[in-house]
Amino acid sequence: MTYCIGIRLDQGMIFASDSRTHAGVDDFAKFCKMTVFAQTGDRVIVLLSSGNLAGTQAVIGVLNQRCAASPEVPNLWNAPTMFEVAMLVADAMRDIEQRDGEYLKENEVGFNASFILGGQIRGEGLRLFRIYAEGNFIEAGEETPFLQTGETKYGKPIIDRVISGATPLADATKCVLVSFDSTMRSNLSVGMPIDLICYERDSLELRMRRRFDEGDAYFNALSREWSEGIRQVFRQLPDLLW
Amino acid sequence: MTYCIGIRLDQGMIFASDSRTHAGVDDFAKFCKMTVFAQTGDRVIVLLSSGNLAGTQAVIGVLNQRCAASPEVPNLWNAPTMFEVAMLVADAMRDIEQRDGEYLKENEVGFNASFILGGQIRGEGLRLFRIYAEGNFIEAGEETPFLQTGETKYGKPIIDRVISGATPLADATKCVLVSFDSTMRSNLSVGMPIDLICYERDSLELRMRRRFDEGDAYFNALSREWSEGIRQVFRQLPDLLW
Repeated sequence: MTYCIGIRLDQGMIFASDSRTHAGVDDFAKFCKMTVFAQTGDRVIVLLSSGNLAGTQAVIGVLNQRCAASPEVPNLWNAPTMFEVAMLVADAMRDIEQRDGEYLKENEVGFNASFILGGQIRGEGLRLFRIYAEGNFIEAGEETPFLQTGETKYGKPIIDRVISGATPLADATKCVLVSFDSTMRSNLSVGMPIDLICYERDSLELRMRRRFDEGDAYFNALSREWSEGIRQVFRQLPDLLW
Repeated sequence: MTYCIGIRLDQGMIFASDSRTHAGVDDFAKFCKMTVFAQTGDRVIVLLSSGNLAGTQAVIGVLNQRCAASPEVPNLWNAPTMFEVAMLVADAMRDIEQRDGEYLKENEVGFNASFILGGQIRGEGLRLFRIYAEGNFIEAGEETPFLQTGETKYGKPIIDRVISGATPLADATKCVLVSFDSTMRSNLSVGMPIDLICYERDSLELRMRRRFDEGDAYFNALSREWSEGIRQVFRQLPDLLW
């Protein structure tokens, strides 16, 4: 399993992904699920991948190859809009599906890569997409400022209650980390390290990126103080009069 | 879908269930999923049902019929322990499965009733079980003081962080209601009214039972103050230093 989330706020964007991959409880490993294409002053593009690792790595591989090919080939460095980027990612997914799909069907495993894609290209605002395994995609809007993939349920209520477009980046960052903590407590197939990016609107530069591994002092303090804080809130809420 | 939870605390027990049943988004209704067998001074037994309504109602029907039969028939009023009660519920489930199962298979729908069972019988402590559709069951222990059925994920993190055996009944009550609020926000197939019971250890009497329907003033205030409270907690948590 996987847990990935992208959030579009007035002040910027937040991206986070876990790093656990597994093929059964006796076969798990760590792989970074966050890929960044950033050129200061021009674009910051973040991809969070979920699904079969062979599939998501192949898609990233194709995207990188096309970036390295001649400048006439449409790629993530010359795409004029994030919508074009989403279509390029979808094209790469469909190419891999065409190549591998038939062989995976024989093994009763389908091609199931999917992505959260977001960022900013000079001349555009902030944009956030979720690209399904079939290559079709949706874009986040005002009413739904965040998109999740993988094990989404445990971490969603806290995001729902706290995050709106107006939430400051610093508060949203803490909320996302608590959302990951809640998810990892309940699903062993979501695990550290957590990769986190906080992107400031119109900066067109990647300034804030952090990786949280087991025993991270800030993450542990946040988790502990959050638990204490909410127990305090419960004590202060009005008691039910029967 | 359904959301039911039973919690065993040092001070007593809490039971809660939603009331939504559905057979598709265009066919939903309200049915109470909480059944109580209480005789002051002798026993308080609570059953929370989830799964196919025809199945759960049939099981409750059989249990009631056996209670009304001659006193020689083992039933929920004369069972000497909660373990015996769990076995009687399982027997009723298996009887209904034997009667209906074959016909449901032809309709590609299996028998899928399951129950949370808890309470206290004079001479015993507090006991809490989850009975699976097959009739086998587990009992809550010190490490896992609560059991859920149905749409369990959205409401679990808050219970996980707040509830331990030592949690006062009043705080746990508020926590359960917030857990339901979180679940109903994310899954339309879990809906009001919420039935809630709070049982005080060794009282052997049902004193606190409440139903929360749409627009309930206390429930709405709790939800609002909880959201405000946790936003406050996030502001007070230490910011991440990049």
